[in-house]
Amino acid sequence: MPSRPLGVALIGTGFMGKCHAMAWRNTATVFGGAHPRLEVLCDTPADKAHDYAAQFGFARASDDWQTAVVDPAVDIVSITTPNGLHRPMAEAALKAGKHVWLEKPMALTFADAQAMADLAAAHPGQVTLLGYNYLRSPAFQAARQLVANGAIGRPLAFRGVYDEDYSADPDLPWSWRMTLAGGGLGVLGDLGCHLVSQMVALMGPVVEVTAMTQIAIASRPFAEGPRAVENEDSALALIRFASGAQGSFATSRVARGRKCRLQWEVHGSDGSLVFDQENMNELWVHRAGEPGFTRQLSGPEQPDFAAFCPAPGHNFGFNELKIIECRDLLRAICGGAPARPDFAAGLHIEQIIHAMAASEGQPVKIEESLHETA
Amino acid sequence: MPSRPLGVALIGTGFMGKCHAMAWRNTATVFGGAHPRLEVLCDTPADKAHDYAAQFGFARASDDWQTAVVDPAVDIVSITTPNGLHRPMAEAALKAGKHVWLEKPMALTFADAQAMADLAAAHPGQVTLLGYNYLRSPAFQAARQLVANGAIGRPLAFRGVYDEDYSADPDLPWSWRMTLAGGGLGVLGDLGCHLVSQMVALMGPVVEVTAMTQIAIASRPFAEGPRAVENEDSALALIRFASGAQGSFATSRVARGRKCRLQWEVHGSDGSLVFDQENMNELWVHRAGEPGFTRQLSGPEQPDFAAFCPAPGHNFGFNELKIIECRDLLRAICGGAPARPDFAAGLHIEQIIHAMAASEGQPVKIEESLHETA
Amino acid sequence: MPSRPLGVALIGTGFMGKCHAMAWRNTATVFGGAHPRLEVLCDTPADKAHDYAAQFGFARASDDWQTAVVDPAVDIVSITTPNGLHRPMAEAALKAGKHVWLEKPMALTFADAQAMADLAAAHPGQVTLLGYNYLRSPAFQAARQLVANGAIGRPLAFRGVYDEDYSADPDLPWSWRMTLAGGGLGVLGDLGCHLVSQMVALMGPVVEVTAMTQIAIASRPFAEGPRAVENEDSALALIRFASGAQGSFATSRVARGRKCRLQWEVHGSDGSLVFDQENMNELWVHRAGEPGFTRQLSGPEQPDFAAFCPAPGHNFGFNELKIIECRDLLRAICGGAPARPDFAAGLHIEQIIHAMAASEGQPVKIEESLHETA
Amino acid sequence: MPSRPLGVALIGTGFMGKCHAMAWRNTATVFGGAHPRLEVLCDTPADKAHDYAAQFGFARASDDWQTAVVDPAVDIVSITTPNGLHRPMAEAALKAGKHVWLEKPMALTFADAQAMADLAAAHPGQVTLLGYNYLRSPAFQAARQLVANGAIGRPLAFRGVYDEDYSADPDLPWSWRMTLAGGGLGVLGDLGCHLVSQMVALMGPVVEVTAMTQIAIASRPFAEGPRAVENEDSALALIRFASGAQGSFATSRVARGRKCRLQWEVHGSDGSLVFDQENMNELWVHRAGEPGFTRQLSGPEQPDFAAFCPAPGHNFGFNELKIIECRDLLRAICGGAPARPDFAAGLHIEQIIHAMAASEGQPVKIEESLHETA
Repeated sequence: MPSRPLGVALIGTGFMGKCHAMAWRNTATVFGGAHPRLEVLCDTPADKAHDYAAQFGFARASDDWQTAVVDPAVDIVSITTPNGLHRPMAEAALKAGKHVWLEKPMALTFADAQAMADLAAAHPGQVTLLGYNYLRSPAFQAARQLVANGAIGRPLAFRGVYDEDYSADPDLPWSWRMTLAGGGLGVLGDLGCHLVSQMVALMGPVVEVTAMTQIAIASRPFAEGPRAVENEDSALALIRFASGAQGSFATSRVARGRKCRLQWEVHGSDGSLVFDQENMNELWVHRAGEPGFTRQLSGPEQPDFAAFCPAPGHNFGFNELKIIECRDLLRAICGGAPARPDFAAGLHIEQIIHAMAASEGQPVKIEESLHETA
Repeated sequence: MPSRPLGVALIGTGFMGKCHAMAWRNTATVFGGAHPRLEVLCDTPADKAHDYAAQFGFARASDDWQTAVVDPAVDIVSITTPNGLHRPMAEAALKAGKHVWLEKPMALTFADAQAMADLAAAHPGQVTLLGYNYLRSPAFQAARQLVANGAIGRPLAFRGVYDEDYSADPDLPWSWRMTLAGGGLGVLGDLGCHLVSQMVALMGPVVEVTAMTQIAIASRPFAEGPRAVENEDSALALIRFASGAQGSFATSRVARGRKCRLQWEVHGSDGSLVFDQENMNELWVHRAGEPGFTRQLSGPEQPDFAAFCPAPGHNFGFNELKIIECRDLLRAICGGAPARPDFAAGLHIEQIIHAMAASEGQPVKIEESLHETA
Repeated sequence: MPSRPLGVALIGTGFMGKCHAMAWRNTATVFGGAHPRLEVLCDTPADKAHDYAAQFGFARASDDWQTAVVDPAVDIVSITTPNGLHRPMAEAALKAGKHVWLEKPMALTFADAQAMADLAAAHPGQVTLLGYNYLRSPAFQAARQLVANGAIGRPLAFRGVYDEDYSADPDLPWSWRMTLAGGGLGVLGDLGCHLVSQMVALMGPVVEVTAMTQIAIASRPFAEGPRAVENEDSALALIRFASGAQGSFATSRVARGRKCRLQWEVHGSDGSLVFDQENMNELWVHRAGEPGFTRQLSGPEQPDFAAFCPAPGHNFGFNELKIIECRDLLRAICGGAPARPDFAAGLHIEQIIHAMAASEGQPVKIEESLHETA
Repeated sequence: MPSRPLGVALIGTGFMGKCHAMAWRNTATVFGGAHPRLEVLCDTPADKAHDYAAQFGFARASDDWQTAVVDPAVDIVSITTPNGLHRPMAEAALKAGKHVWLEKPMALTFADAQAMADLAAAHPGQVTLLGYNYLRSPAFQAARQLVANGAIGRPLAFRGVYDEDYSADPDLPWSWRMTLAGGGLGVLGDLGCHLVSQMVALMGPVVEVTAMTQIAIASRPFAEGPRAVENEDSALALIRFASGAQGSFATSRVARGRKCRLQWEVHGSDGSLVFDQENMNELWVHRAGEPGFTRQLSGPEQPDFAAFCPAPGHNFGFNELKIIECRDLLRAICGGAPARPDFAAGLHIEQIIHAMAASEGQPVKIEESLHETA
């Protein structure tokens, strides 16, 4: 962990902006090391930036991110803005010699993501990390270890869904987020990529996807009359993994009653795991010979839990995922274990969701060149 | 319900044979009507048939099913033998003028199933019913009514799995059931067709499937050395419904820890339903505007429950499914509501599982001619 | 199991009457042995008895139970009538030399129960069995074995509830069941005694109870105006066991939303068990050193399950409890293992619920003389 | 919320010390207002205090709490030390004119707690707040509102447990915490008082308790040989509320497999609520007429959730409870709503747990004078 304070610029003050801010303020509290310098908070308009700088405890506020990302006092740039701004911001930060912590997905298009990964590869001394926060929970880390350690034998099958219902209401007005140009992929970019990140972490790289997508609500109300929704409300896919395992995949933003149903199971030759993010402190484990699934509550025997709380069963929270992610970033910057998924590994995720969006029911191959980074 | 006693021949005394026997003995107890005459029980060898005839309360025993199915005292033939015997037995019974209650799947091959359906169509006065028992639970019937009544709006998506682990142990010896000639489709015939039966009942007919299958354990021990497994251990599919809805489908006989995980959810435009056969007395219902899913325990307000028990929360059992199925059969014979799925409707199910088995990742169309019977 | 058919008289055709009938028809189907002769069905008026005799498959119908219980063709009398009739019917049957299968609780008053137990003791060659059906489920039997085998070490604590909401509606009319003379104890007789039966089976005899009771809805509508409810809607108790363990106990008939919430847990020195009758096919087991509770679905490795179904996870049903109970009765009659709880053991249960009803917050001792029979 | 920064001294760096530190750093981030000045961190020895001051971001470190609590730069003292130190620290802080945030329970003895409450009453301008963090969760606040708003009608019954297994291992060595002088009440002080805090918040004041306690493991290993455990491992109680409602209460530190099982249910005349802290983001609600319990995942429609996260189903965490508690403290200091439970209200909780400890199976009255503060 860092022995000297690193300077931070945070761009964006919404859902994930606040989540990053809480993490920046408490990562050292939890894990030790030097507290970072919270140098500059960027948002528009200026008074909003000013108010949030005070609330989040940043030294300065700015409505000019271009200046902030080249600020000499800044070592790390946290980017939490809409997806269309990810590429220019990340590229500017990389070119200015900064480390980059970027919310997912990488960009609106695969070409953009590819360009970003290429640029990151050209700056090998700078750390990049994508905000796939669900990878960090103690329960998920424990699951990943169980798979890696062979506790459930050879993974045979993956079944995963990530469903929410934030777009289920047909009276929800049209917005630019529902266009390809403004929002990119729909649910695949919002939710699907999270599920891909966990799927790949558990099962290894993907070699082929076959997918169908659906726009459940074709148009939405807007001031001048209904407008068409361009990106998908739901997607389903079949997956072939490099290991020979197979998987099913589904995601929806119109699944009535689901709130954060990032649920998956892995069937191995010697056991199975089941997880649901709506109860993110439970991991269900079955090993051959046992009479059923064991409900394992998160606790200090799982990775990283003890730094937050010594007592099992005391629920780890969603916002705390970001503290672990922040620690991983700082550790990588200080020469420790690489932070993953970086832009290179993120490209595999991007390729998968873009392949799903393009599949139209036909098998689409995933480039092998990216496998080693997954 | 029948006012005069109908004569019954039961062929087979295994898992489903006993289940049929319990149903034949108690359907009138539960629902009223004349108790059937339990005429003849068939199995081989003869002493086994004799012992089970006594245990199940049948008047006579026989090791000769050909004679039994033409017995003038027999009105209905219950067939619970291995799948390879379904066609000859069902055809003999139909030709002898009997009603037929046949366990699923219909046959080893689609051609066999087609021939059986054709023969049934040529005997319109005789009732056929396939043993898709999971369609009968009060919770499933309630779910089907909710969908049909529009309680969750327009069905948009189906997600279904049926997983067990009865073949997960690699030390389980090879058997003829693992061959195409002897066992037909593997898990698709054992479990998958049950899930199809529920999927179609909830979502309507299927127009296209795209599937992948897997043999997880390639060979199994046998006396003279390991032998190859020929039929699939697991299958995954994408589904297009005639309604425009989409679905995901998965089934496995090697899903460690799963015992009767016939689990599905339906996302509708105004609500969602979730069900899991392992807790078959729970139906989870969400309607737009409600704060979550409601756990609805089976009780007398659900179809057919009250005939078994006046008290809610007193669990309906797996074996009792067959009593409802038997009642449906008897009601149809007596001129009441048609029993479904009959051989005609069953053919749609057969077509779907055979299409899945043949898909190899490519979309396969399902004939429209069968839709109206689904 | 019986090698010669025994003759049965069944008195009552309500909830439990039908449940007994189904058991009488299928106990031999499930477990083997001779099918009993269903000799006579008693109810009033005569035409009701006649109709149910046909439905349940009894040879004769009667509206005169006194005659039926002395019928020479009858070996066993099943009594499923209101509690106030239990004593005269059971006594008449015992005096006529019959075996008696009696629904719980034994009687309206402890004195009545004592007299019945005394009479049964004077007829040692006749079997008595009380209908505490919840003791029979495979999951409960498995739990009992785990405790008895020391799998969870020394039992330290019991926590049990049995809650339903059948009386929660204040508009439910007044009935004689709500009087002490007509209904006896209220919820303690309806539900509480079931929980006591499981508590004692798991923890051994009780030496002291301290209880509070409550009438939540003081009066109820009746034709001539509201009438007072005399027996308790809910009861709470502290329990001291002979073993030194302690327990908490609660039961209610006004617990909104609960349907068959017979839920308990046992904390042992080396593990814990948790059970809920609303999901009667799940037993939750934790042993020291394991990472949590394991959800054990009922299956053929649990006692008596395999006779019903060879497949785990295929839910055992409430009505099937009675088949196991009937088998226990028949086995005892044929000289096998004694059927429990008989009238002697039932008296311990009666003493406990009557002590709870009388406690008014003060500790009440339970007689030690009854312990050995519990 | 505070417009000028308040100065904070934090005493203790263990489980709750770190939890307070995280809260002090992020309460303004979440809720706005001025960030407090983290003035001085106290622990012993000095180098430990120094290290944690750096980690938690406090300006100064000290091994001398007496000096810290009178420091003019300090406005608020957070006390997270062993229970035996609560009284002297809290009294010193109050006498120095400071606001006091004190972990539960108040003290080792009721007399100590009474003295503390008296002193607080003599300093009406200073805010006191006890660390009953479980009162703060969005789900619990929602439950409390539902009860208060009459959503479940008149509360009739409470059923509560708080079980963990941190002392279940008999090889756990003896410590001073297991003595009355050092640890005070055992599980009643550790866990039981939390359950009392929720029970009173939901049901109103208590007028009588009848309790039994148990020391399950009589002695524990120690260097010079086994030593006796003096305070209770478990406690059970019956509760009478001022409202006329009744309750059952149980707590254990030797409940194998339980980790944070703070579980309760409230039965009201028109509905029921169920909650379990091990899944603290779920509140189960049943209202008369609905077909079951609805699983309500925490989300922005519950109190205080939205300030942490705009997305429902994204789990609120245990540590975040303390941020809400800290906000309540700061709001009270700034003249907003009183923070509860303060020392006066806490005395009712203390009285209840001390009455339970003393009851030995006999009813003990709770003083009415304290009811209005509960």
